[in-house]
Amino acid sequence: MKLHDSGRAPNPRRVRIFLAEKGVTIPLVPVDIGRGDHKSPAFTALNPFQRSPVLELDDGTAIAESVAICRYVEELHPAPALFGTDARERAIVEMWQRRLEFGLLAAIAAVFRHLHPAMAEWEVPQVAAWGEANRPKVEETLRILDAHLADKPFVAGERFSIADITGLVALDFLKPARLAIPADLAHVRRWHETLRARPSAEA
Amino acid sequence: MKLHDSGRAPNPRRVRIFLAEKGVTIPLVPVDIGRGDHKSPAFTALNPFQRSPVLELDDGTAIAESVAICRYVEELHPAPALFGTDARERAIVEMWQRRLEFGLLAAIAAVFRHLHPAMAEWEVPQVAAWGEANRPKVEETLRILDAHLADKPFVAGERFSIADITGLVALDFLKPARLAIPADLAHVRRWHETLRARPSAEA
Repeated sequence: MKLHDSGRAPNPRRVRIFLAEKGVTIPLVPVDIGRGDHKSPAFTALNPFQRSPVLELDDGTAIAESVAICRYVEELHPAPALFGTDARERAIVEMWQRRLEFGLLAAIAAVFRHLHPAMAEWEVPQVAAWGEANRPKVEETLRILDAHLADKPFVAGERFSIADITGLVALDFLKPARLAIPADLAHVRRWHETLRARPSAEA
Repeated sequence: MKLHDSGRAPNPRRVRIFLAEKGVTIPLVPVDIGRGDHKSPAFTALNPFQRSPVLELDDGTAIAESVAICRYVEELHPAPALFGTDARERAIVEMWQRRLEFGLLAAIAAVFRHLHPAMAEWEVPQVAAWGEANRPKVEETLRILDAHLADKPFVAGERFSIADITGLVALDFLKPARLAIPADLAHVRRWHETLRARPSAEA
């Protein structure tokens, strides 16, 4: 098994943090997006959508999509459970994982991709008005999240989960997107600091 | 347990099709989006993101996000398995579920929401250039999908899964978005006809 991985981008990082939390090591194969490795015929055969990361199993099966990779690793290495421990908790983790993915990570990515000058050659067409339209979405999600986190350490409750990983990666992505956590959102700030302090955040 | 449900929109329909495939009935509570029911204080308490559907458990827990609801139902009613039957198949189902959700359903929804005149009062701001930017994304995903479906009946392989439900709902959403499957994509057309012919498609 090997993981085709691409450094600093949010999705590859989500998988590496997940592996670090599990204490699992998988050999990495670098895919240099800047050099266009993800558009090579060999990589396109692994993932016709030309996105990294991809987990390549020993039988040749290629698993793309970060959350699909994490879920596969969870089945091979169930402890610590990062998708929840019973049906209700698993549903809550999935709910927050998706809320943070669509309402936060995707919205921050839209601001970054459609407004940052360095992305002009990568995001074609860059639609500045769409980037601008996502600024209030980011803040709206952060405000809902702040109220939610007032009485719990992690987004799905008492236990750290994959939803927190998506949250960490999203919040760390605010800076390149030239956004910030509003100063009055103390619970989101505390949560971000807690997540950044975990050794897995270095992955 | 009850399901707060909103008629024709793609996400509520995904959950109803899933329940029909399982042969499971859950009492429905109508949430009329046109009337603004989803913005009421009572519904906002259930889901601060003000989106339907929401599954309300008997202990009061509110599970939002269609796929989280489906996953919870899968745990209560494992047969027929709609998220895959072993670790590898579950990873493949998740991968395709996400590819179809981000690359197809979300792209078609962007065309609909940002270009359809009837959506002007709902999608604020409507960003026409973003709608236009999603047209080629829809076609690109459909072309990759067509090649993928050349040698298999369902998107994850031999078995019907939740990824097919997302595919059906997405393809049925092409019409309101004023899009169509390109005429040369015979495998996508065959797949769409197969899915539409299942009794669950009426849900």
